[in-house]
Amino acid sequence: MRIAVLGVGLIGGSIGLAAKRRLGAEVIGFDSEPFRLERARGLGAIDAAAGSVAEAVRGADLAACAAPVSALPDLVGDVLAAAGPDAGVTDVGSTKRELVERVGALAGAERFVGGHPLAGAETSGVENARPDLFDGARWYLTPTERTSGVAYDRVQRAVAGLGARPRAVDPAAHDRMMAAVSHLPHVVANALADSATVLLGGAAERLPEVGPSFRDATRVAGANPGIWTDIFATNRDAVADQVEALAARLREAATLIRAGDPGALAEWHRRAGDERRRLLEAGRPGGALRELRMTVTNRPGTVAEIALALGRAGVNIEDMALDPAPDMRTGAISVWVSGEPEAERTAEVIRRLGHSVTVVDSGR
Amino acid sequence: MRIAVLGVGLIGGSIGLAAKRRLGAEVIGFDSEPFRLERARGLGAIDAAAGSVAEAVRGADLAACAAPVSALPDLVGDVLAAAGPDAGVTDVGSTKRELVERVGALAGAERFVGGHPLAGAETSGVENARPDLFDGARWYLTPTERTSGVAYDRVQRAVAGLGARPRAVDPAAHDRMMAAVSHLPHVVANALADSATVLLGGAAERLPEVGPSFRDATRVAGANPGIWTDIFATNRDAVADQVEALAARLREAATLIRAGDPGALAEWHRRAGDERRRLLEAGRPGGALRELRMTVTNRPGTVAEIALALGRAGVNIEDMALDPAPDMRTGAISVWVSGEPEAERTAEVIRRLGHSVTVVDSGR
Repeated sequence: MRIAVLGVGLIGGSIGLAAKRRLGAEVIGFDSEPFRLERARGLGAIDAAAGSVAEAVRGADLAACAAPVSALPDLVGDVLAAAGPDAGVTDVGSTKRELVERVGALAGAERFVGGHPLAGAETSGVENARPDLFDGARWYLTPTERTSGVAYDRVQRAVAGLGARPRAVDPAAHDRMMAAVSHLPHVVANALADSATVLLGGAAERLPEVGPSFRDATRVAGANPGIWTDIFATNRDAVADQVEALAARLREAATLIRAGDPGALAEWHRRAGDERRRLLEAGRPGGALRELRMTVTNRPGTVAEIALALGRAGVNIEDMALDPAPDMRTGAISVWVSGEPEAERTAEVIRRLGHSVTVVDSGR
Repeated sequence: MRIAVLGVGLIGGSIGLAAKRRLGAEVIGFDSEPFRLERARGLGAIDAAAGSVAEAVRGADLAACAAPVSALPDLVGDVLAAAGPDAGVTDVGSTKRELVERVGALAGAERFVGGHPLAGAETSGVENARPDLFDGARWYLTPTERTSGVAYDRVQRAVAGLGARPRAVDPAAHDRMMAAVSHLPHVVANALADSATVLLGGAAERLPEVGPSFRDATRVAGANPGIWTDIFATNRDAVADQVEALAARLREAATLIRAGDPGALAEWHRRAGDERRRLLEAGRPGGALRELRMTVTNRPGTVAEIALALGRAGVNIEDMALDPAPDMRTGAISVWVSGEPEAERTAEVIRRLGHSVTVVDSGR
């Protein structure tokens, strides 16, 4: 099997590494940046570097386009023009509707299947590429009525072969879904950072200590400007719809809060907690997430001591959050584990270390 | 010095422990729940348990009301009625305007100074009380023109004596400030959980894997219903104003996104990142926060290994976030440290462990 990888950053490089190791494929790479192509070859992510898109896809069974979202329409067009009649062509962009629509108008569109692996968002660069990046990861595929069965089958098998879990989805539905669970939180983080600055910067008051809720809610504010500008631009309608729906929902919440009826507030608040839990726990193996909170001395080594003891006990930490106190000498640690028995075991380990710990009840 | 603590949960109990240890005070406790009062005495958080509010405050130099926000107006009224003419009276509620207004109408209001320590939000219960809970913590005080200088001086000295950093602030300004950096993110988390449920629950699509941005943004959805219902109810106007302002800002963002101008989007996105950084870094010692990201195997012990190595190197972790990959076998870890030299040292330690690590550039 021969695979062409167009764009050899984190995702392209990882496709190369996984295809070589898991599929025994021969991987030909191309990148518009010669230094990146050279690095990918040096790291063994590709077997050979091509001098052009056409050279890379010649004789390839599969071509994977792993360029930035804004470069994809032209790149996919070039690949379709150069690839053989039996080649499957796919991409790994974070938004799908606009690309699939544009590619649909091209000759050879029947060989194209849009794709989006949910992996690697946290780093970038071919030097972080790994053969197991896609292990167990969801990989959305967006075939249309124009897509040939042969192309879909080829792309789908390759994706599964790389270790991922392919799932077909309508391109517009994909973009709406991602708008709700990924793009919207990014817009909200930006708007919150803006809001706080306007209020606090305008007043003569000095800045207050910013709490953990603000920190969590704005963590992705301004993240990776290049990537996110592309995502917002290519999914603008779905994202704008979601943002407007949230704005409407916030206005309802403001009305509810202003009315100040404790019963209605408590009911609204409790429902939100339940909803979040259901969303996060959907399909999670090992039981519902349980949170344990402890207060500790914030000296170097404390986190290690706790994590190490949990490691020794075989506890897997699913998530963790640290909130240093203002003096930076003490802090709270929250740890999330899967399932009730694991939570009890975790609490026991932490208590044995001499820390007080609370298993947060499901009312949270 | 004799201190009365009315309500002996986490905060009241910690005031008792700190007052005994740091101020050499005699601490008399009262609580509407006899079992809690007994536990507080058993833990040494109070020297003696009183049978009533009046008995507790008799002869006290200072009375600290540490009951839930909704119980404070009546409690403070009872305390003012029973306390001596020279006693200072304070509280520790999370909202201030409404309480201060109501107490202002009472006889003896000149002895009252509203208070709000920024500590302990992460746990509850007297069994988690600690004498160092307030070390270095901001403690807002809200004197008014009715407050006597003697009472303010007494409360302010006691707060500093407990290890905290008192700061006077207008009660309404306090509530607006907390609305922006604490109450608003809680409302947003609730609304986001709601939005995602409506979109995903209504469609025939199965739930997608929920990304780290959604998880961070909704972490506090539905947190502690009892406490938060009180906070929303007693700060309803400031919170509703903030929520409406954010809704307006989101509608502007939706318009910007729908227009799809990449230059304008990039500028907006970048500004939000800068704003967040400025807000979080205000007043932080040791330099700006730097983020390091690494991808690791998610087996038990990995977090410990990293944290331990950093501890050995004397690196203080200010914040940490884990994002397990869908297969639960790998994950990304982000670690925040203070200042550029610390970031470089941290990166070196992590590289020596064989992990690849990226110091996220300030463009984030």
